[in-house]
Amino acid sequence: MTLDFDKMKERLDALLDAQRHGQMRGALMMINEVDIAEYMQTLDREKLLTVFRILPKDISSDVFSYMDNDQRQLLIECIGDAEIAKLVDDMFIDDAVDFLEELPAGVVKRVLQNTDVKRRNLINQFLRYPENSAGSIMTIEYCEFRQGITVAQVMSEIKRTGIDKETIYTLYIIDDQRHLVGTVPLRRVIMAEDDILIDDLMETNVIAVSTMDDQETVADTVRKYDFLSMPVVDKEHRLVGIITADDVMDVIEEENTEDFEKMAALMPSDKVYLKTSPFRLAISRIPWLLILMVSAMFTGALITHFEGLLSSSAIGIILTSCIPMMMDTGGNCGSQASTLAIRGMALGQIEFRDLPRVLWKEFRVSLLVGFILALVNFGRLMLFGGANMTTKVAFVVSLSMFLTVMFAKVIGASLPMLAKKVKLDPALMASPLITTIVDACSLTILFNISAKLLTF
Amino acid sequence: MTLDFDKMKERLDALLDAQRHGQMRGALMMINEVDIAEYMQTLDREKLLTVFRILPKDISSDVFSYMDNDQRQLLIECIGDAEIAKLVDDMFIDDAVDFLEELPAGVVKRVLQNTDVKRRNLINQFLRYPENSAGSIMTIEYCEFRQGITVAQVMSEIKRTGIDKETIYTLYIIDDQRHLVGTVPLRRVIMAEDDILIDDLMETNVIAVSTMDDQETVADTVRKYDFLSMPVVDKEHRLVGIITADDVMDVIEEENTEDFEKMAALMPSDKVYLKTSPFRLAISRIPWLLILMVSAMFTGALITHFEGLLSSSAIGIILTSCIPMMMDTGGNCGSQASTLAIRGMALGQIEFRDLPRVLWKEFRVSLLVGFILALVNFGRLMLFGGANMTTKVAFVVSLSMFLTVMFAKVIGASLPMLAKKVKLDPALMASPLITTIVDACSLTILFNISAKLLTF
Repeated sequence: MTLDFDKMKERLDALLDAQRHGQMRGALMMINEVDIAEYMQTLDREKLLTVFRILPKDISSDVFSYMDNDQRQLLIECIGDAEIAKLVDDMFIDDAVDFLEELPAGVVKRVLQNTDVKRRNLINQFLRYPENSAGSIMTIEYCEFRQGITVAQVMSEIKRTGIDKETIYTLYIIDDQRHLVGTVPLRRVIMAEDDILIDDLMETNVIAVSTMDDQETVADTVRKYDFLSMPVVDKEHRLVGIITADDVMDVIEEENTEDFEKMAALMPSDKVYLKTSPFRLAISRIPWLLILMVSAMFTGALITHFEGLLSSSAIGIILTSCIPMMMDTGGNCGSQASTLAIRGMALGQIEFRDLPRVLWKEFRVSLLVGFILALVNFGRLMLFGGANMTTKVAFVVSLSMFLTVMFAKVIGASLPMLAKKVKLDPALMASPLITTIVDACSLTILFNISAKLLTF
Repeated sequence: MTLDFDKMKERLDALLDAQRHGQMRGALMMINEVDIAEYMQTLDREKLLTVFRILPKDISSDVFSYMDNDQRQLLIECIGDAEIAKLVDDMFIDDAVDFLEELPAGVVKRVLQNTDVKRRNLINQFLRYPENSAGSIMTIEYCEFRQGITVAQVMSEIKRTGIDKETIYTLYIIDDQRHLVGTVPLRRVIMAEDDILIDDLMETNVIAVSTMDDQETVADTVRKYDFLSMPVVDKEHRLVGIITADDVMDVIEEENTEDFEKMAALMPSDKVYLKTSPFRLAISRIPWLLILMVSAMFTGALITHFEGLLSSSAIGIILTSCIPMMMDTGGNCGSQASTLAIRGMALGQIEFRDLPRVLWKEFRVSLLVGFILALVNFGRLMLFGGANMTTKVAFVVSLSMFLTVMFAKVIGASLPMLAKKVKLDPALMASPLITTIVDACSLTILFNISAKLLTF
């Protein structure tokens, strides 16, 4: 059903090697642009250029949009500035800006010198929007109409100019000052009689984002309202662009990747793993590792502090051997709770005002979870705890386990919510940080309870 | 720009309390269905029913589709079976199936008895598709046309029936046996002359999913090709449904949530956190906690094994106090690598055949990261290590740290990839499991090197 990439590649390679360029062009016309781009990723510089020249001109800028940056760079090194400028002219403005953002400044300048003045100014304006803002990902190839025109006028205008629009399926209605006053799904226009005014069809309850809004806001809003495209307005509520659903899907995955990375103590990067140098990867990993390593030393200091208790007796060794289990279980309980809180907030299902409800829920969950884990642990210690194990020691360790679970759940759930309240990214309060905090607490609980209840 | 929910709620509540039902209906007509549904979530049973009765009939099934399950259940308890059946009739088939899936079997039966035979059979057929399969999330309200008709015929058919379709923006062309032979974007039809054959406009390079494909496959394909809707075919490649982009966005978030949950040692659940009982939450957390707790006991056994080394001397206490740092750092290094591998595979950027490249990259990254961490650790031990610290001990601990980092990175990156190879879910090879494995290894490294190089 979906395409067999390897088979396709084999056939195209054969045509390319045999220099059957006519047949090659025919074959390429039968393949989706996305797949052509994927095929071109596999080619070396020389073949890449050959295939690019063979490509039907009307799809070459589409294919170029779908190629990844390294391959695009490789290609533009082989073709002239004028040809690059032609490509940039043919691309939708959002794709063109995406592409130019990754190029060295010198190349961008040369490329822009070859595009026409109007487009150059436009691109420059787009390049000034902050990264990940709605402005930086929007496109200007949308259908806008003034109030007061008829369905017939709209349809004839779409027939005339629709080919250059990124989408024609939602029409945007503006007033004389270019304020966005309504939206009309194309479907409604098609169903309507020719002489109906567009004003009578439009949805006046306009939902739009601002150029400076974060792309995450855009994604959340599009997902909430099931839009095919989202209008973008400036501070004066004038329509300046739209963002289409396909771009929103990429934003959703990008934002999720960022959360996954933060939750694994990585500095977020929008580079593809296999294309990132080991040096850059190391740079993105070291900061949090260092911070967490230094924090873990405090947990170590706890052990030194309880040195007398731990090194002097058989019970000391039992307690020491429980350290990994206490640390790991506490950490796991904490990350479960923090993951649910972080994800709940990311999906808009949990707000800061829910904190008491969340804490109350985690409290009850931790009673259950803590009891089961403590019970299993008690049984295990009594059965396999060795010659020096006593009921009392097993009880103390299990009690510590129970309290650690309770503590970890409450801390794990509340820290991400508090972080959000003080405008920190909740995703930073994930497994690694929670684990480090809970580690110290779990050992404090274990050692203190032991010191109180056991005689060494 | 986007809606101020609290202000809207306040106004609607006031109208509702004053029993101004006419004004209320007018107000509701100005609000997006999604927001009406959100407003209705906040109401109690009695008010919910009142607002539902006030709602203009043509949007009530839309609003109902956007409400969450608990609130829908509350509502259908108050209205008659015939009215429920009417709702189900008005909903798109995919929304209706979604809704019915959550109802008790008895209610479903009663509801279906009130819908017409054709629709009942259809719904029953949909209810049989496996959960999360393409079949279970598709809809049948799409635009299909036989080969050989003209643009004018297509447009007049769309005008006649388009109102009942979930999307009209991609048209699906079938042959006499209902095989999917092509797709046409509506845009191309609008641009074309009236007497052109649809066959001349269609894309014959059809990309489709099968009813039994997993929804993740659907999401990946839609995202790859930037489709507005994805055709679904049966085993004989006959067109049976489509899946629209807005549903795909929900699938993407659902699949990401599942990965987040698995990566935090939670059993995946598609329930909203705040609506899940503590008992159910505990059930979803306990299995992995138990497995990991038992595994952590092996790490504890290691400590018991090296008891002589640890409890007998000042160096023993230094080593014991390094346990948390070794465990945490090893675990963090491992989860960084595993997260990148898991995410890379989820986004299709890493395949099993890349394993050697990934290992080689992680090897180089870990050299850098390990060196930096070992260096910082060495400095810390020499400066703040206390009276009993010697260069040799600091060196041994730092060397162990270096080796732990290398080991953790390689294990962390390769386990998820191996899991995928043997058809296990890579997301299970995330932080918690990797941490437990790396813990045992890091202490083995530390104790063994110490036993060899140090004299106690």
